[in-house]
Amino acid sequence: MKIFYSEEHRKHYPPFEVFDGGIRVPYYENPDRMDQILSALNKTDWAELTEPKDFGLDPILAVHDQGYINFLASCWTEWLASEPEVAAAPEQHAFLPATFALRRKSRPTSSLRGRGGYYIMDLSACIVEATYKAALASANCALSTAEFVLKNSTNAFALCRPPGHHSGKDYAGGYCFINNAAVTANWLSSKGKVALLDIDYHAGNGTQDIFYERDDVLTISIHGDPDFEYPHYIGFADETGEGVGLGFHKNFPLPKDTGDEQYLSTLDEALSMIRDFAPEHLVLSTGMDAYDGDPLGTFHVTQNGFNEMGKRISSLNLPTAIIMEGGYANEALGNNLTTLLKTFR
Amino acid sequence: MKIFYSEEHRKHYPPFEVFDGGIRVPYYENPDRMDQILSALNKTDWAELTEPKDFGLDPILAVHDQGYINFLASCWTEWLASEPEVAAAPEQHAFLPATFALRRKSRPTSSLRGRGGYYIMDLSACIVEATYKAALASANCALSTAEFVLKNSTNAFALCRPPGHHSGKDYAGGYCFINNAAVTANWLSSKGKVALLDIDYHAGNGTQDIFYERDDVLTISIHGDPDFEYPHYIGFADETGEGVGLGFHKNFPLPKDTGDEQYLSTLDEALSMIRDFAPEHLVLSTGMDAYDGDPLGTFHVTQNGFNEMGKRISSLNLPTAIIMEGGYANEALGNNLTTLLKTFR
Repeated sequence: MKIFYSEEHRKHYPPFEVFDGGIRVPYYENPDRMDQILSALNKTDWAELTEPKDFGLDPILAVHDQGYINFLASCWTEWLASEPEVAAAPEQHAFLPATFALRRKSRPTSSLRGRGGYYIMDLSACIVEATYKAALASANCALSTAEFVLKNSTNAFALCRPPGHHSGKDYAGGYCFINNAAVTANWLSSKGKVALLDIDYHAGNGTQDIFYERDDVLTISIHGDPDFEYPHYIGFADETGEGVGLGFHKNFPLPKDTGDEQYLSTLDEALSMIRDFAPEHLVLSTGMDAYDGDPLGTFHVTQNGFNEMGKRISSLNLPTAIIMEGGYANEALGNNLTTLLKTFR
Repeated sequence: MKIFYSEEHRKHYPPFEVFDGGIRVPYYENPDRMDQILSALNKTDWAELTEPKDFGLDPILAVHDQGYINFLASCWTEWLASEPEVAAAPEQHAFLPATFALRRKSRPTSSLRGRGGYYIMDLSACIVEATYKAALASANCALSTAEFVLKNSTNAFALCRPPGHHSGKDYAGGYCFINNAAVTANWLSSKGKVALLDIDYHAGNGTQDIFYERDDVLTISIHGDPDFEYPHYIGFADETGEGVGLGFHKNFPLPKDTGDEQYLSTLDEALSMIRDFAPEHLVLSTGMDAYDGDPLGTFHVTQNGFNEMGKRISSLNLPTAIIMEGGYANEALGNNLTTLLKTFR
């Protein structure tokens, strides 16, 4: 299987993130995740790692706001220039806003702090020097995968870091800066209808945001109910699209402690919707944090569960761009992922 | 001068707040502010301190959302019950959200974390055990002042802590939980038109939010331009009210380094608008952080400037409820405030 991967992510390693209560913790979405995955892939006889090519900004700006991408590009430099304390020890710092855009009547401002809280929705989307470059390389992995899938009418995997599905039209969140899966789905959509299935444990709020008013990309997300789980404000069952997009988005919010059986029966519903939609291509937002024991999840999906998920999804027989999202049980990440991927060979 | 003050604020002393970059700093809006003011008031021969009476929740719920007030009331207990680490050392912790409500399609959720980021807009509105009680007592100081002003057709001062003007209908922010000035203005509005003038250095976003669609309360705020200053997303010149409220809100965003002269000429414009409106009562949101040298400000208003401001505002000859807001140059706070207050005797 063709796998697009870039080492650009490695320096995107913020020294902390901030949990509720203003508590600093080590960054969960860390380079070790990739090392665990690479190690598992290297043990297979089918993983063919390739550098992505550069697609430029156009396919990214096709789903993201220009002002937002400008912010990502200049944030760190502006932050360093305005904060001597940060400039003195940049490796100990990351940009995060402290004030967030209000629900009513917000606009981005000239100041970095104002733009920060407009373009970032939480305290995990920490920006450091390497973040923008890493996000671009990650998007290029996804686009290279899309191109390969299109040309060869087969499946391919984008080993993306940072992940993307929490990033909306004009905001970062949940370790995500550029929505790799959305960029991919939009790019493929010029060739025909696309379905995007998000199996990350957390609701794909960014993807929902981007395609909510479109009928050419069916988006489906299976996830922990936002009534108790991050991202809290989007991903509810009654959100089904708007305008021409009405009926082309579906959320499956599931309760805490969801195991293989409940997950798989929900997946069957999702796959049935995809079959009815009859797309040309599938984009699979592949988070592995539904895993039993993921430190940021509450589900109990097993390795066998991932194997069965892969079998059922690949049985759609759609050329599939598999895009890496979250998954934080690092020690199990490699095996779980290869278990899923090998069903797509 | 009658001054309503309660000691309930004292235990509302969060162990930190969080600045941009996820940096913890000591809580700027601290009890020492009140001690400095009390010390200055005690040196005068006109300050008559009185305990507030309890007005209950009705006048608060007349401007704030019930769900929001419920959140303030239960937040700390819920936080303690769900976080053993917090319960083990509550004095080292404060509740703050890590994920914030999105601009599009947000709703409060069952989970505390989801409600946290829905009802709190920044990392300075830290909630500790004493916060809700302190906020209620602070609102009661404001309401007691309103009642005194109404009954005696004179001026009175509410020495409020926590302050209020950043708190909107359904959110806390900027050290503010219940909008004392808005509660006061709304309470007085049942007796006739009210003008609310906000001279705190930071835009009175909460007050603007609460009265934006009303024509019976004229709200005016003079402040650092939100294009560079907190609260970043509201307080712009083109925000002038909506619906029947159109024309009944006015923002005067001023540049960095504004000094006495520019401030006073802006104040004259504001006072002229108030004269034209011809209200029965005035509510004065009295932040002292326009002061030259305030650590959270950029203006250069002097003690003489505050004296002149007081003279001009009191020359409106309106019964005035003076409500304490911000001001963080603690050592100068008492003298600056008494300088302003004595012009209202």
